[in-house]
Amino acid sequence: MSLRDEAVDISVDGHGIEGTLVLPERSSESGPAVLFVHGWGGNQEQYLARARAVAGLGCVCLTFDLRGHQRTRTQYDAVTREQNLSDVVAAYDLLARRPGVDGSRIALVGSSYGAYLGAIATSLRPVRWLSLRAPAIYKDAEWDRPKRELHRDPDFIEFRLRTHRPSENRALQACADFRGDVLIVESCDDRIVPHAVVASYVAALTNARSLTYRAIEGADHGLSAEQWKQAYGVLVMTWLAEMLAGASAPMAETAHAGARQPAES
Amino acid sequence: MSLRDEAVDISVDGHGIEGTLVLPERSSESGPAVLFVHGWGGNQEQYLARARAVAGLGCVCLTFDLRGHQRTRTQYDAVTREQNLSDVVAAYDLLARRPGVDGSRIALVGSSYGAYLGAIATSLRPVRWLSLRAPAIYKDAEWDRPKRELHRDPDFIEFRLRTHRPSENRALQACADFRGDVLIVESCDDRIVPHAVVASYVAALTNARSLTYRAIEGADHGLSAEQWKQAYGVLVMTWLAEMLAGASAPMAETAHAGARQPAES
Repeated sequence: MSLRDEAVDISVDGHGIEGTLVLPERSSESGPAVLFVHGWGGNQEQYLARARAVAGLGCVCLTFDLRGHQRTRTQYDAVTREQNLSDVVAAYDLLARRPGVDGSRIALVGSSYGAYLGAIATSLRPVRWLSLRAPAIYKDAEWDRPKRELHRDPDFIEFRLRTHRPSENRALQACADFRGDVLIVESCDDRIVPHAVVASYVAALTNARSLTYRAIEGADHGLSAEQWKQAYGVLVMTWLAEMLAGASAPMAETAHAGARQPAES
Repeated sequence: MSLRDEAVDISVDGHGIEGTLVLPERSSESGPAVLFVHGWGGNQEQYLARARAVAGLGCVCLTFDLRGHQRTRTQYDAVTREQNLSDVVAAYDLLARRPGVDGSRIALVGSSYGAYLGAIATSLRPVRWLSLRAPAIYKDAEWDRPKRELHRDPDFIEFRLRTHRPSENRALQACADFRGDVLIVESCDDRIVPHAVVASYVAALTNARSLTYRAIEGADHGLSAEQWKQAYGVLVMTWLAEMLAGASAPMAETAHAGARQPAES
């Protein structure tokens, strides 16, 4: 399939952030789309190869730079979660409004801080498929404090070693309310997002339509070795292919109708 | 691959229950095995076609009749969970001791009451892969009361409409302690095992090595339509094939090592 990249300028809060659309050749029918959200300290480039692979499945893909990164690097120390969440929503809106994109078939694929923001974004925009790799977590408090400063909390490390419930955390609550399909990928040797955080996300997803949780043996947080990057790529591609194959019908509102009369079993 | 069935008599508590081994043609090396546990009111026959399909993947398979069913049908009203759990363990032991079976690569595949017993059995015997379809749940109390009578509890229906935590329930606690790979399959229109029960199992599995949760749209508890049986069959086969492919190495004890020093993310 022939693909085409297109640079886009995403307007948010009177600023512009840079993004790249990867466009598959497609018939006139509208189809699925995938939004990639990079982690803290990352950039859209890291997801571009993956976006091209996913576009090969027939999806319009968008990668972009969160504020505080790349062209807006000067905001690195000052940018807040609220601002970066606005970035995700602005990127989503650009993608969803793109001709050829079916707004009911949008996937969000995020890593670390980008997975945290992506989880919250599902409470603001319709997301059908959600992929969270090594999802980070932060306390809800001091929402508008610069993101960089959140790490100064003396309880920051211990907070991530405890499990948390949806009622205590905005990202987990968004997961608890999420009714689409979810992929969660953990790095088994992650010193930044320990297992307790991933376990809290998995346990929160009690209303997901499906859940695929996989851990990459030996991998560190940033997937520094090529084999770990490849393993993650295979997981995302396999999962998306399964999801797209089952997505010809609109998502049933009554997925878990919860019949009231259990009998014998 | 040529397969061979072999009838076996499983000795438990001085009784004999009937089982069927399905044996693949195999080299002299030992390989994986799968134990199938039917639901209340079912029998080994229901899993025989599936066992033959799974044996085609190179697994020694065993199906059997729980006490109170088929030849021991006269015990239907009197059999207890403790007795049926002993049946599962006896069947497991017969399978694990079979020449050609690698005791570190045993899967347990259960439905409904059989999934409930199977979950508990993981606390008694080493199980690497656990598949639970529409897993039932019961209160721990009155453990030795005949299984049939548990349904007389006036809170029985409401109990299954609430979510439960591992500390409250033996099957959920076994899931919380389980460190292998898990498949959970829900029927979306299940009037016997409502979504709250499945959600409790999913939420309990915080230490699983991987988790695959899928729901079959429109399906009832017993998968009465052929298309639902087929959908379940595809899920089990796809999952097992993935698990067997990744199982050449022994399972890492340190899957979730829980590093103590999260840094920035």
